[in-house]
Amino acid sequence: MKILYHYPLSPFCRKIRLMLSEKGLLFQLEDRFPSKLMEKAPLEEPPLLFDENNYIYDHYVIAEYIEEAYKSPNLFGETLTERAEIRRLSRWFDEKFFLEVSSHIINEKIKKRLAGEEPNSTNLYYAKKNLNDHLFYISHLLTKNAKLASKYLSLADISASAHLSVLDYLGEINWEKYPEVKEWYACMKSRPSFSPLLSDKVRGIFPSSHYKNPDF
Amino acid sequence: MKILYHYPLSPFCRKIRLMLSEKGLLFQLEDRFPSKLMEKAPLEEPPLLFDENNYIYDHYVIAEYIEEAYKSPNLFGETLTERAEIRRLSRWFDEKFFLEVSSHIINEKIKKRLAGEEPNSTNLYYAKKNLNDHLFYISHLLTKNAKLASKYLSLADISASAHLSVLDYLGEINWEKYPEVKEWYACMKSRPSFSPLLSDKVRGIFPSSHYKNPDF
Repeated sequence: MKILYHYPLSPFCRKIRLMLSEKGLLFQLEDRFPSKLMEKAPLEEPPLLFDENNYIYDHYVIAEYIEEAYKSPNLFGETLTERAEIRRLSRWFDEKFFLEVSSHIINEKIKKRLAGEEPNSTNLYYAKKNLNDHLFYISHLLTKNAKLASKYLSLADISASAHLSVLDYLGEINWEKYPEVKEWYACMKSRPSFSPLLSDKVRGIFPSSHYKNPDF
Repeated sequence: MKILYHYPLSPFCRKIRLMLSEKGLLFQLEDRFPSKLMEKAPLEEPPLLFDENNYIYDHYVIAEYIEEAYKSPNLFGETLTERAEIRRLSRWFDEKFFLEVSSHIINEKIKKRLAGEEPNSTNLYYAKKNLNDHLFYISHLLTKNAKLASKYLSLADISASAHLSVLDYLGEINWEKYPEVKEWYACMKSRPSFSPLLSDKVRGIFPSSHYKNPDF
């Protein structure tokens, strides 16, 4: 049995959970583990996948591994150009969106709350301002295709929805301002792969009232 | 003709230059470009590769693209386990080593010098302390194989040597303390792919006296 060591509200762990489920793979989730297990991980944190008697470290390495080991359905695109664009968009969310938006909101609204500290409203203000720019960019991508990189589901949709799902858990997204993004996210949310994420509960951090509802 | 938009002393750009050369591909280097060209780049900076009428953004996306488009010689390993370990080590240097060592030394010794500012000695002290731990880790990897991930050259060696080459340009490495690392780096430095990097000159930042010498 595959084991995924994870944090429930980490966008990078959610990306891997979604990928494994979209590939139809069964896996056990573990959110308790000794920190020593992460010693060889470049970012020193989960996700960490145990598969075929091997540990695979790091969300980017795990994503490439899953795509190579379990080819169907293809989530990385067919042609070289498609594959470069899908990887670029996935990096866009994992690097730029994380740096400008999700890392700040996670820090202020999750890490500080769990540590009993007050969130910094200036950090939150800028993160939310950046969030609007990114939602506008997603709307722009959706004028061309039903999904972010093409008409098919790809790693780009998975990475983007993994980040947005954490912000939606916290009730940080004003969906009404971005109807195309809302429609795309409602589709993502309705996929069976998303269902376990919608049941996540983290002690001390309550999900927004519409978080579980696919017709939000 | 392929064009690589780059900064000469960026480890990420150097990684791509080494990869292209190891694959025997010809390319033109450009270190002047409009900033608009980087708009779609997740990190908003070079490397950016123009190939077959397409722009490929981001060092990670470009590395995967080159490996898929130009298969020989294989730089990512054969089996799934090898490929995961090579990617893990490449990430180790591009993420952990960069965060703990090279980003600080580049900031203090290159960016601040070009801006006419004084380097912060505390930052440099910690970066060099971390550098020793990483050189020790490289020594440890080299007790198992002649190269970092196996007996063959891989992306792991390329990423590591790209970062170390920038620090060596600045004269920041005490090679005598790490003879196995010195021997491995001397081999890397002697490869034809490395030669253009050893001729790099950046106005206002002079290379260390031994930088060009493969028998340093």
